[in-house]
Amino acid sequence: MEQKEAVTVLGLGAMGTALARALLAAGHPVTVWNRTPARADALVADGARPAPDPASAVAASALTIVCLLDDDAVRAVLDGVDLAGATLVNLTSGTPEHARATAAWLSDRGAEVLAGTIMVPTPLVGPEEGLVLYSGPATVHDRHRTTLAALGRTDHLGDDPGRAALFDLGMLDVFFAGLASFLHAAAVVGRDGVPAAEFVRYAEEVVAILPATFRGLAEDVDAGTHPGEEDNLVMDATALGHIVATSRARGVDPALPELVHRLARRAIDRGHGADGFSRVVDEIRSPRPRDAAAAPADAGAR
Amino acid sequence: MEQKEAVTVLGLGAMGTALARALLAAGHPVTVWNRTPARADALVADGARPAPDPASAVAASALTIVCLLDDDAVRAVLDGVDLAGATLVNLTSGTPEHARATAAWLSDRGAEVLAGTIMVPTPLVGPEEGLVLYSGPATVHDRHRTTLAALGRTDHLGDDPGRAALFDLGMLDVFFAGLASFLHAAAVVGRDGVPAAEFVRYAEEVVAILPATFRGLAEDVDAGTHPGEEDNLVMDATALGHIVATSRARGVDPALPELVHRLARRAIDRGHGADGFSRVVDEIRSPRPRDAAAAPADAGAR
Ligand SMILES: NC(=O)c1ccc[n+]([C@@H]2O[C@H](COP(=O)([O-])OP(=O)(O)OC[C@H]3O[C@@H](n4cnc5c(N)ncnc54)[C@H](OP(=O)(O)O)[C@@H]3O)[C@@H](O)[C@H]2O)c1
Ligand SMILES: NC(=O)c1ccc[n+]([C@@H]2O[C@H](COP(=O)([O-])OP(=O)(O)OC[C@H]3O[C@@H](n4cnc5c(N)ncnc54)[C@H](OP(=O)(O)O)[C@@H]3O)[C@@H](O)[C@H]2O)c1
Repeated sequence: MEQKEAVTVLGLGAMGTALARALLAAGHPVTVWNRTPARADALVADGARPAPDPASAVAASALTIVCLLDDDAVRAVLDGVDLAGATLVNLTSGTPEHARATAAWLSDRGAEVLAGTIMVPTPLVGPEEGLVLYSGPATVHDRHRTTLAALGRTDHLGDDPGRAALFDLGMLDVFFAGLASFLHAAAVVGRDGVPAAEFVRYAEEVVAILPATFRGLAEDVDAGTHPGEEDNLVMDATALGHIVATSRARGVDPALPELVHRLARRAIDRGHGADGFSRVVDEIRSPRPRDAAAAPADAGAR
Repeated sequence: MEQKEAVTVLGLGAMGTALARALLAAGHPVTVWNRTPARADALVADGARPAPDPASAVAASALTIVCLLDDDAVRAVLDGVDLAGATLVNLTSGTPEHARATAAWLSDRGAEVLAGTIMVPTPLVGPEEGLVLYSGPATVHDRHRTTLAALGRTDHLGDDPGRAALFDLGMLDVFFAGLASFLHAAAVVGRDGVPAAEFVRYAEEVVAILPATFRGLAEDVDAGTHPGEEDNLVMDATALGHIVATSRARGVDPALPELVHRLARRAIDRGHGADGFSRVVDEIRSPRPRDAAAAPADAGAR
């Protein structure tokens, strides 16, 4: 039987534990380390080898997966550890700037580095339903892709170590706005006595047209042209004004549709009323002072 | 051959014309009227009968479909017209408040009234791809549903004439937030040289998980419980903070993710950090003064 590659996992929080489990399940020799050692116990009972400290954990395998709270924790754990000859895959979430800086910091200590982001919750980690985005040297990704496939489908996004975080955050941007808008709509219809469970199938009809709509927007954004065909920004702003008014009339926070309405209005004020909604990308690219002023001071903080 | 019901269409803008065409295509005798008479010419050439004024148009058919710019136009057109014995289906878009007031105004003049909203663009109007939501008396909907099926699938939402507009705006709320968030993400990744066409398939992966996610949120909203399972608001706020920081670092307007971040932070500040994202519905239901103050004065206007 073919010998599977040895892998070390640093960090046994909810996600690190799921990663170590998936590697064990795929038959890899797995070495583990966690700041709070007790969190390794169940994995050790299932065949993982505990390492006494980060340095010996990294030395135990040619490939080390790091999954800690944030990049500050990565530096705290690996400060002073010799990484010459090691390959580190950092699956700690953060911004592209964090990912680039940490990759450089790890490279300076001698490691080859991939930066990745896990796109699924812990129960879906594994070869069937997992998805992990990677960025950094393609050679490193290719060398370990068979091992990494134990965690989920792998997708290599390019050399820039910030790229996986960039795509992760772009996806979460769309995800959380979708969730917030559904909750907003649910709050509005709820005021008129409609249960969210009754509204949800209509929201699903909207979701069904989003993929084709996104593809149309993407074409416009890349071409820099924003033709208004079946609808235009004036019609969109009318509908958005109705959403805002309907929200206000029910005492529901109108801030979300109001923000989208404001973007459409700004584009109309600049003479683009006959354009399609994709024109709004120009407004998003150039924030106006009044929006910056309206943001509370803590908004950028964690 | 069975005689099809006669129908009048008031208003021959882009949508009224599409409605009249679909009725002609289904074999209905169609009477039309428009303020600017020339817009009727092509339909008349295809078999529609022009009426000289709104009163004779309404008198020509037992069923009249109204599709004008807004409800002010509906009143301008029908003011002084005797509607006794007529059935009016008002497919003019507006707020639930508009729809209720106009239905009452039309009823006062003797009409039976359905209030509807067309959920598709003009090219999709028709029995295969159309979708129209109706509200008002179920008896009126049932009596005319065979005729209305020529415009698209019909969906009756209940007696309250505002219900169709309410659902329409709820759906558009989710739709436009989705579009704006995609454009925001495209602007962010674009700053790092990623074409929107390259990012779009990742956005589609997000869309794929929205239906199940919405159903989960709807359950929580209706139950009033917000269990944090695979993720919680503290983790969500961390990710949202990263999105805001990544947007700011690229000079892209952070207002959209910032707003969602602020909602999550508010819920955390009120002690709900271990809850799931659905908890945010409570924040949306009770706007805080500072958000109201941050909204520009014109935001509620059309
Ligand atoms: N959970 C998910 O569904 C999910 C999904 C996608 C991505 N992620 C990402 O995966 C990473 C880990 O998430 P998680 O859910 O596993 O978090 P978690 O359960 O909170 O675990 C945090 C881990 O970081 C360690 N840690 C924190 N600060 C440290 C420090 N200063 N020094 C050493 N170790 C430190 C903790 O060690 P102790 O045990 O000693 O506290 C623990 O191992 C995060 O970046 C997260 O965004 C998670
Ligand atoms: N187009 C779509 O894709 C779509 C989709 C869903 C819903 N809708 C809704 O359908 C309705 C009509 O939209 P549309 O696209 O057909 O608009 P449109 O092309 O702009 O047509 C507007 C119509 O309203 C008439 N009108 C406006 N003000 C009037 C007044 N004061 N008195 C008499 N007539 C007046 C116009 O008459 P003149 O020709 O004399 O100007 C024209 O017939 C709107 O409520 C819209 O929101 C449209």
